[in-house]
Amino acid sequence: MELKIFSGSAHPELAVRICRHLGTEEGRREIFKFSNDCTFVKILESVRNDDVYVIQPSCAPVNDGLMELLIMIDALHRASAARITAVLPYFPYAKSDKKDQPRIAITARLVANLLETAGIDRVLTMDLHAPQIMGFFSVPVDHLTSVPILSAYYQKLKEKDVVVVAPDAGRAKLARTYGKLIGAPIALLDKQRVGNEEKVEVNHLVGEVKGRPVLLVEDEIASGGTMMAEAEFLHNAGATEIFVACTHGVFSGKAIERIASSPITEIAVTDTLPLAPERRIEKITVLSVAELFAEAITRIHKGQSVSVLFD
Amino acid sequence: MELKIFSGSAHPELAVRICRHLGTEEGRREIFKFSNDCTFVKILESVRNDDVYVIQPSCAPVNDGLMELLIMIDALHRASAARITAVLPYFPYAKSDKKDQPRIAITARLVANLLETAGIDRVLTMDLHAPQIMGFFSVPVDHLTSVPILSAYYQKLKEKDVVVVAPDAGRAKLARTYGKLIGAPIALLDKQRVGNEEKVEVNHLVGEVKGRPVLLVEDEIASGGTMMAEAEFLHNAGATEIFVACTHGVFSGKAIERIASSPITEIAVTDTLPLAPERRIEKITVLSVAELFAEAITRIHKGQSVSVLFD
Amino acid sequence: MELKIFSGSAHPELAVRICRHLGTEEGRREIFKFSNDCTFVKILESVRNDDVYVIQPSCAPVNDGLMELLIMIDALHRASAARITAVLPYFPYAKSDKKDQPRIAITARLVANLLETAGIDRVLTMDLHAPQIMGFFSVPVDHLTSVPILSAYYQKLKEKDVVVVAPDAGRAKLARTYGKLIGAPIALLDKQRVGNEEKVEVNHLVGEVKGRPVLLVEDEIASGGTMMAEAEFLHNAGATEIFVACTHGVFSGKAIERIASSPITEIAVTDTLPLAPERRIEKITVLSVAELFAEAITRIHKGQSVSVLFD
Amino acid sequence: MELKIFSGSAHPELAVRICRHLGTEEGRREIFKFSNDCTFVKILESVRNDDVYVIQPSCAPVNDGLMELLIMIDALHRASAARITAVLPYFPYAKSDKKDQPRIAITARLVANLLETAGIDRVLTMDLHAPQIMGFFSVPVDHLTSVPILSAYYQKLKEKDVVVVAPDAGRAKLARTYGKLIGAPIALLDKQRVGNEEKVEVNHLVGEVKGRPVLLVEDEIASGGTMMAEAEFLHNAGATEIFVACTHGVFSGKAIERIASSPITEIAVTDTLPLAPERRIEKITVLSVAELFAEAITRIHKGQSVSVLFD
Amino acid sequence: MELKIFSGSAHPELAVRICRHLGTEEGRREIFKFSNDCTFVKILESVRNDDVYVIQPSCAPVNDGLMELLIMIDALHRASAARITAVLPYFPYAKSDKKDQPRIAITARLVANLLETAGIDRVLTMDLHAPQIMGFFSVPVDHLTSVPILSAYYQKLKEKDVVVVAPDAGRAKLARTYGKLIGAPIALLDKQRVGNEEKVEVNHLVGEVKGRPVLLVEDEIASGGTMMAEAEFLHNAGATEIFVACTHGVFSGKAIERIASSPITEIAVTDTLPLAPERRIEKITVLSVAELFAEAITRIHKGQSVSVLFD
Amino acid sequence: MELKIFSGSAHPELAVRICRHLGTEEGRREIFKFSNDCTFVKILESVRNDDVYVIQPSCAPVNDGLMELLIMIDALHRASAARITAVLPYFPYAKSDKKDQPRIAITARLVANLLETAGIDRVLTMDLHAPQIMGFFSVPVDHLTSVPILSAYYQKLKEKDVVVVAPDAGRAKLARTYGKLIGAPIALLDKQRVGNEEKVEVNHLVGEVKGRPVLLVEDEIASGGTMMAEAEFLHNAGATEIFVACTHGVFSGKAIERIASSPITEIAVTDTLPLAPERRIEKITVLSVAELFAEAITRIHKGQSVSVLFD
Repeated sequence: MELKIFSGSAHPELAVRICRHLGTEEGRREIFKFSNDCTFVKILESVRNDDVYVIQPSCAPVNDGLMELLIMIDALHRASAARITAVLPYFPYAKSDKKDQPRIAITARLVANLLETAGIDRVLTMDLHAPQIMGFFSVPVDHLTSVPILSAYYQKLKEKDVVVVAPDAGRAKLARTYGKLIGAPIALLDKQRVGNEEKVEVNHLVGEVKGRPVLLVEDEIASGGTMMAEAEFLHNAGATEIFVACTHGVFSGKAIERIASSPITEIAVTDTLPLAPERRIEKITVLSVAELFAEAITRIHKGQSVSVLFD
Repeated sequence: MELKIFSGSAHPELAVRICRHLGTEEGRREIFKFSNDCTFVKILESVRNDDVYVIQPSCAPVNDGLMELLIMIDALHRASAARITAVLPYFPYAKSDKKDQPRIAITARLVANLLETAGIDRVLTMDLHAPQIMGFFSVPVDHLTSVPILSAYYQKLKEKDVVVVAPDAGRAKLARTYGKLIGAPIALLDKQRVGNEEKVEVNHLVGEVKGRPVLLVEDEIASGGTMMAEAEFLHNAGATEIFVACTHGVFSGKAIERIASSPITEIAVTDTLPLAPERRIEKITVLSVAELFAEAITRIHKGQSVSVLFD
Repeated sequence: MELKIFSGSAHPELAVRICRHLGTEEGRREIFKFSNDCTFVKILESVRNDDVYVIQPSCAPVNDGLMELLIMIDALHRASAARITAVLPYFPYAKSDKKDQPRIAITARLVANLLETAGIDRVLTMDLHAPQIMGFFSVPVDHLTSVPILSAYYQKLKEKDVVVVAPDAGRAKLARTYGKLIGAPIALLDKQRVGNEEKVEVNHLVGEVKGRPVLLVEDEIASGGTMMAEAEFLHNAGATEIFVACTHGVFSGKAIERIASSPITEIAVTDTLPLAPERRIEKITVLSVAELFAEAITRIHKGQSVSVLFD
Repeated sequence: MELKIFSGSAHPELAVRICRHLGTEEGRREIFKFSNDCTFVKILESVRNDDVYVIQPSCAPVNDGLMELLIMIDALHRASAARITAVLPYFPYAKSDKKDQPRIAITARLVANLLETAGIDRVLTMDLHAPQIMGFFSVPVDHLTSVPILSAYYQKLKEKDVVVVAPDAGRAKLARTYGKLIGAPIALLDKQRVGNEEKVEVNHLVGEVKGRPVLLVEDEIASGGTMMAEAEFLHNAGATEIFVACTHGVFSGKAIERIASSPITEIAVTDTLPLAPERRIEKITVLSVAELFAEAITRIHKGQSVSVLFD
Repeated sequence: MELKIFSGSAHPELAVRICRHLGTEEGRREIFKFSNDCTFVKILESVRNDDVYVIQPSCAPVNDGLMELLIMIDALHRASAARITAVLPYFPYAKSDKKDQPRIAITARLVANLLETAGIDRVLTMDLHAPQIMGFFSVPVDHLTSVPILSAYYQKLKEKDVVVVAPDAGRAKLARTYGKLIGAPIALLDKQRVGNEEKVEVNHLVGEVKGRPVLLVEDEIASGGTMMAEAEFLHNAGATEIFVACTHGVFSGKAIERIASSPITEIAVTDTLPLAPERRIEKITVLSVAELFAEAITRIHKGQSVSVLFD
Repeated sequence: MELKIFSGSAHPELAVRICRHLGTEEGRREIFKFSNDCTFVKILESVRNDDVYVIQPSCAPVNDGLMELLIMIDALHRASAARITAVLPYFPYAKSDKKDQPRIAITARLVANLLETAGIDRVLTMDLHAPQIMGFFSVPVDHLTSVPILSAYYQKLKEKDVVVVAPDAGRAKLARTYGKLIGAPIALLDKQRVGNEEKVEVNHLVGEVKGRPVLLVEDEIASGGTMMAEAEFLHNAGATEIFVACTHGVFSGKAIERIASSPITEIAVTDTLPLAPERRIEKITVLSVAELFAEAITRIHKGQSVSVLFD
């Protein structure tokens, strides 16, 4: 079983970085769309009996990326790959993980089913919105975390007497983890979501931030609208500086512009998602997870423990 | 089991037409995208124990439409619909129905699997590129055809001594059917496809068209590039007029402009796919399949034979 | 499809109460163990083509109750029941819903699979530890909540200027919900779990409780050890009275004795789990969910919306 | 693929014996119950890509042992074991192998499904109550027999002119096998089972035992109630000595006391099930199957024929 | 759901008889073989939403009958039948129900899987060789028995002081049942099977038959070779008359001739299998099971208890 | 994983030829029918952990061959073969690949399901009637073609100014391929099929054959009735010589006699199907595909690209 890495078209730079750490060449494939808008994939080299990893985080256009991934998996399976691992640094539809309204889908479970139907044997992912998503799969999932990378970066805040702030009750556990790693107390923003419109209203702070810098912890920043309201609230509550640690930087819509003109001091994200050079601003620090993924892939391929990566 | 019709966002006009024939209201649903580009669907009325039909032909953006359909099905299934029928007037990825190159996917089978995984109980579709696609499903498929509608329209060519032309060997059978219904001889274009680039070269005509009008029969027109080459060739071969009968009018890219300036006399398509009012030109006649779909849905719902629709 | 209610041996009183609200007789069945300790189940009346509900919350001996349920489902399925709904007021293994340590099981997903393998068509449950567990099932799940019942009971605290306290970050969202329903602010206990030994150490309070009564919100009380530490901490932090709202009262080991001698003022739980008469103490108020389950079963049986029960 | 042996908590001594024959160390795992009575399992060493065997015969508490096994399998599967073999020296629910009354379960098939659902790749078992149980599995089953071990031990009866007695019609075939191996005639007890109460009445002997020793052959002894009645009957019918050969010694309830005071001369059982030292009496001889299991595991691991073990 | 009965080509007379009892017409279908020997089936009337029963016992050519049945089921499923019941009065490959030699198939389980794969929802069968075969199915199985019919016919032997003889250990239980119904003692033939060649050697009788008539009980008579040896042995052992009760009369090869010239007095079989008029001889009495099947089908269709048929 | 080749009883000569090219011995197995016409298979050597290929083209008696294959697969699977490849040089029921009439089966899909249910891991086949049949499988399919072998043989016609004739519209694509390989123009016969009776009427020729030899291309010749009509028609249309290239020579019924007395000059077929020595006539040339299959098996076994065989 030879090791083969393929990248979908979602985030080729990450694949390049991972391959560099692995000291291997990316597998060659052809991807395009027919004039009727249907995606076509062709694997350009033999994968018979190989141990194949397909790297495809979920980024816009999300549904194109997901269907492309499913088609690649079907092609690899029919081409007799021995084992297919979907490498999903940012998991598609991770927030649609429960039925908290009547008659909605649990799309994250649907995605797990679609991937298994297409033919995956394993999944490698990072910082799932909810760890229960691992249980949506029947196949084994290796779940990496960027928290050690991000919290290592923010050790510099330790001396500043920082407060780790959970942006909502759902992230309180994450704040707790950062608090322990950095040695800082935590606080919690109390918010109210209005419908599905992604509008939230911050109306209370549980804990104290006055006169201290804060570290707001998130797993994902999309349009940044919510984060702006949080930063504003923390600023008004007397926070001296606002740092943000976040795994998945989606930065959709006017996110970059908003951040540039916000009271936020710095945002550290990882490269699970692409960030075009022209969209990079000084306030945003990108830390790479490529080495971590490369190490995990090596261990999976060789049958070595992956859990040691968390110690 | 009450009858409920829902439409995805692919072709709402067709759903409206079908509902009008059924004398029923469309089911209410909400569809939008989150700022991270993930699709969200909510069914806004109870479907518990209902017999639900979801109308969603495959049109650009194809992958968005397909994922939206899968998510709707998951939502309907978890909302306890008794039976879910995917109504796919134009089947997604129908042309990816075989592995005619090494290491490609059979995406039409993959789509069948994805739909069954999401939770469909049946399929209703029309003029599949290959009838074998029915065999990609485990669930029952009702397969309608627009050929009676299109050939009825072209009975006017009977007196003109028309020749039915198959654009390639794969459509020879279809030409044969039209030939029988209109009472006309057939001819066959001999072409050569170059790679996956959708460029073809017409290099031979099997049969005779000189001094006679022709009826070119197709199941799908996408960019129209191939059809232009065919029309040119037939024109040069002495065809007096060029008519086209085609079920699925994708009309992507510059298709409309190309058709406008081509030697083609008329194209009759159906409304399995949307055609924006501003893109409609005189040469294109759109015949509706809505009544036929409404009749089929009624029969499926009531447990009556659907095959009588073909007699 | 006639409605039939069967009870396993876990909590016969709840089944009696539900049947009383439904105005129906429980189905007759025989359950015992062979001398080799294997469970035997026999359904004593015809269930052919019936709509069957099996009531079996998870209580000690948990594995006996679960296997008994699986065996009943197999028997009902082979006896040609038309539809089988597992009614699980307290879901088995709900806390084993993720892989937060290397090489452990996701037992809640396993349980979902076992139930589907045995032959269930639906699930009816209440206040899952994590709502993602719904996504562990392929079959539809109706998820009831006792929060309206418990929070209605605790409206009496509104005037007392109560603070709703989340016992840990994972319950912060639940505290938020109670806070909204009662109109009270929230606070959060910051704890540290040591290994799998269920020993925790409360080391911080985020928010303010001094001089005010608190309402501690939980989904489950087992041995009560953790709750004792929390109550002690809140007491020391100046809380004037300590109320507890909790759906599932397991009360294992010395829980009752501990509660009796603790600074806790009152605990309101529901009857999703049995509480033997001799173990009932004044501090514990039991509110019944039987009517709610009866109403949900009626609606599922008749194909009416269940979500209206949440409005 | 490295060989790894794990034991559930059902019969650790057997695992120790098998490991001794294999010259290997048992895999380390942690098993306990939470205070809500839910079983927890953690595998304490890497099993990635390993060939894992889990030893867990079915003994009281049966349902605890079975759920524990299923949870271990889930944990091993999610920990990426390459192949998982359930080693079930005494198969759970083996007697519930058919539907001989209306509306009962076929629990042995259910157990097979549960094991496959949890993730086993193979089964290794011994002396199934009915060999058809192998057909309840889709995965390959290796079925060992202790008959050569037990009949070798009872060669000493050959000279005594022994008669092999089948305790009921269902065991007639087994008696036939012993008869051939020992070179003895067979007889058959004709009994009547009353309901599910495990009470039987022996009312006839087919064949002759007067003045001769008998060897009663069984696959399982539970409470021993039935066997007592049989021994009594044989004693009254003139049997001079009563020997018993039995694979699985459950010895539940008062079995040991009953045997001690019965006319039975000797019972030879195997160690597929544990027998606590304090329960051992002189009349009971325990023969070990550990070497046979060790040999079978070695052969399965190395891909060598297992059937040669039966020659 | 309308009731529809279809017959394969295996035993049309039985279908006619069952339909007569049901007061219904058989469904029309076309069955033939193409010139490449492939079977073709067409259902000639609508079965949409119907409750369909397909009658096809296993008789030579067995594999043709089985494939024909599978193809009919596929056709009925794709034609949207609501429920499909395979009516298998004589179950195909029932004797291949266990792996009693290395590297053989468990074909009865395979057949169960093939039927479920093709699309059956239920099975109705009679006198399975081993009742465990019910457990080979996931779908519900209704298992009828002809023993009441056959034993009622043989009540005439009660006064004759008959002995019921099991032809081998595997049939001892069946003999026990007949013994109880007729009020007769049982005896057991002890035989030895040689390889797979179906040659057996009777070498011992357990019990007494001298000077009395015997009733040999079987589930199936094929070539009759074994039965001849048994009859010979019983004759030599002093049996005065030899009666045979058997459900499934295969009568292959020279069976009829052998029976005619044997010491057998009478054989009572049922019509689960066809017996051509020219092969009927006076010694063979055929009792019909058609009414019993008709009653069972009615009850299944109406959702009434089938088990009452056994009381 | 050792390579093992087994042959069913359909075409042992082909297996011998393939094994000769592989330089290996065929695996030993026993196949016969019991007196009740049920097929029995026993694998006579260990296949544990082996890479097994079972060769069984579909030839009369087709259903016997198919069931035998399924039983062999079940036996191999239960005997712990590591990987099972069904080698189907002529695919069973390949023409039943679509539902072109109401209420018929899609038997080719059914066959795919049956094979997967029985336990195959892969398929190796040749010249499927429709390439979409590959999509009927979930497992990988390697699809060989005999066109290079047959067209190489017919290079001799190049100089003769041959016309390649498609016998019907469905074969037009195949004719196109031959045309390109031999460098010849194509023509097309226009026919009409009457019902399912396999009677066709040739009523038109699209293209020109007068005064030139023709090469009629087919994938299968069964009774030859259709081909006779075609040859007659081509003869009358002025074709000087009639050559036929065909992969699968079924030659059922009076095919050989018909061919002998027809205007056909030569038929080249392959040995995917057996042709008894006494049925061979001079007009029929048999080209072997054994070496191609041997090469494909070698490549699959070693994990080398199979697609290179098509270049």
